[in-house]
Amino acid sequence: MSHIYIYSPSSAVRDKAAFRRGVRRLQQLGHEVEIDPSALDHHMRFAGDDATRLAAIGRAAASGADIALISRGGYGLTRLLPDLPYKAIARSIERGTQWVGLSDFTALQLATLAKTGAITWAGPALGEDFGVAGTPDDIMEACFDDLVQGHGEGAGWRLPVSDGKAFGPDYRLKIDKAPLWGGNLSLLGSLVGTPWLPNIRKGVLFLEDVGEHPYRLERELTQLLHAGILDQQRAIFLGAFNKFTPVAGYDRGFGLASMVEWLRSKTRTPIFTGLPFGHVPTKVLLPVGAEVEVLVEGRDALIVWD
Amino acid sequence: MSHIYIYSPSSAVRDKAAFRRGVRRLQQLGHEVEIDPSALDHHMRFAGDDATRLAAIGRAAASGADIALISRGGYGLTRLLPDLPYKAIARSIERGTQWVGLSDFTALQLATLAKTGAITWAGPALGEDFGVAGTPDDIMEACFDDLVQGHGEGAGWRLPVSDGKAFGPDYRLKIDKAPLWGGNLSLLGSLVGTPWLPNIRKGVLFLEDVGEHPYRLERELTQLLHAGILDQQRAIFLGAFNKFTPVAGYDRGFGLASMVEWLRSKTRTPIFTGLPFGHVPTKVLLPVGAEVEVLVEGRDALIVWD
Repeated sequence: MSHIYIYSPSSAVRDKAAFRRGVRRLQQLGHEVEIDPSALDHHMRFAGDDATRLAAIGRAAASGADIALISRGGYGLTRLLPDLPYKAIARSIERGTQWVGLSDFTALQLATLAKTGAITWAGPALGEDFGVAGTPDDIMEACFDDLVQGHGEGAGWRLPVSDGKAFGPDYRLKIDKAPLWGGNLSLLGSLVGTPWLPNIRKGVLFLEDVGEHPYRLERELTQLLHAGILDQQRAIFLGAFNKFTPVAGYDRGFGLASMVEWLRSKTRTPIFTGLPFGHVPTKVLLPVGAEVEVLVEGRDALIVWD
Repeated sequence: MSHIYIYSPSSAVRDKAAFRRGVRRLQQLGHEVEIDPSALDHHMRFAGDDATRLAAIGRAAASGADIALISRGGYGLTRLLPDLPYKAIARSIERGTQWVGLSDFTALQLATLAKTGAITWAGPALGEDFGVAGTPDDIMEACFDDLVQGHGEGAGWRLPVSDGKAFGPDYRLKIDKAPLWGGNLSLLGSLVGTPWLPNIRKGVLFLEDVGEHPYRLERELTQLLHAGILDQQRAIFLGAFNKFTPVAGYDRGFGLASMVEWLRSKTRTPIFTGLPFGHVPTKVLLPVGAEVEVLVEGRDALIVWD
């Protein structure tokens, strides 16, 4: 059906069984899967040294595939930012290759947006999403299929009860057109002050993270607050922030909820939670850099793109 | 001998026994110890809510003490940055109060430097340093005593063998006068892009961190690299980066050494290691914001101030 190019721009693949399961799953779905020759390389903790990973990204850009899908995230793209083949990536996108991934991939996405304006997709990774031991999440697969088919037009979800309480039942927000951007919070935070962070005003920012205690998340978000980035947005959507270890008996009510409450007291930009995106099975695909329409009515949230 | 004011600007004190031992130790050394009324407060994971901690900082500034010493670090000052009593802190420093601490305290130090130019001291905390179960580190106590006596003039140490190999036996660096700044890497990184990071060119930057895997440290340092901050310095001194968990069988040679080697290949600013500072018992005191002289000859390093 579609030609999917699998490559490894970041950390070395640890779970090779998940990698293989992911490839088989995509084949079962009818896709032609092409695996980059260095997809399973292992240099230090990277999927090959810097030159190897740069070459893999170059091959993905030259592949002519419909989808260029990362094997996994981890760490590694930050080191490559000055040397990424931005023009080749942007040209491949013009020719119809959709770049999909998350987590460390946020670095490539935001830097490509900053340098070329090209749109990439925040979405699944091969191993963690298509390569799970059981059946991959059906919403994730449906959204991926929408992208493959060229049908993807938006994502809608129900906001949590806590948002309903914070905004009230009659709350309504409509944004006609604004650039959508974001990704992994730690990664985005590590781009502040560098040439690789797009300077987006009046945008719609979405964020997720994994394995970070809320005090660390709050420190990152406070950096974005103090850098003026939160105030400059028209809306902020928080996805999953999971797999951290609370400190029992010490946090005493400090957590994700108190963090969101505190941030809401510091910026007038509305902050919504519950976006189905992040290091969780159920995730939508989101076009990073695209102009989107946003509609929030009561607890119903909708992000729409062309 | 000296009047020492103990206060808690960041996380709540968890180890109250260490707090009490620290107070006793300072008293044994002949000091008059004054404890801020909210030093042992606990609100969420903070030593009191934001207003309480701001008031404690204000009382420390008004105390007329010789030394204002944090009980501990943790997290909390980031939230207070827009509201810190910078003028009161700077006035207290003019009147002779020396502000001492580390870790989360880096936020107050760098923001105070950015806003007022006032000099504070990177040094011990009450609990972790003076309140250890055994005898406090003698170098730490000697450096603290130097500050109390007004005798502190510098810090010298032997660079590790790896630095000797990297720079060669005939290496010599002499910097006549440059501003010393730095502190905790994660904290400093979280100030990039905000008004609270001093804009220091041709400075001497020192950094430490605790509990962070080298890939996270490298990502933070790469942010400073890509933001131009490393290239703008005349020398970089790395202290202790400890208490992280390597990933056995996966890191495969990725670690602190490879991180330093990689950074050295990316900036011409010399990067030295082994500075006796950080979350380790043996630590010197360093004047953040002071003009210092630096001398490196072979493996002998020296930072001197007036």
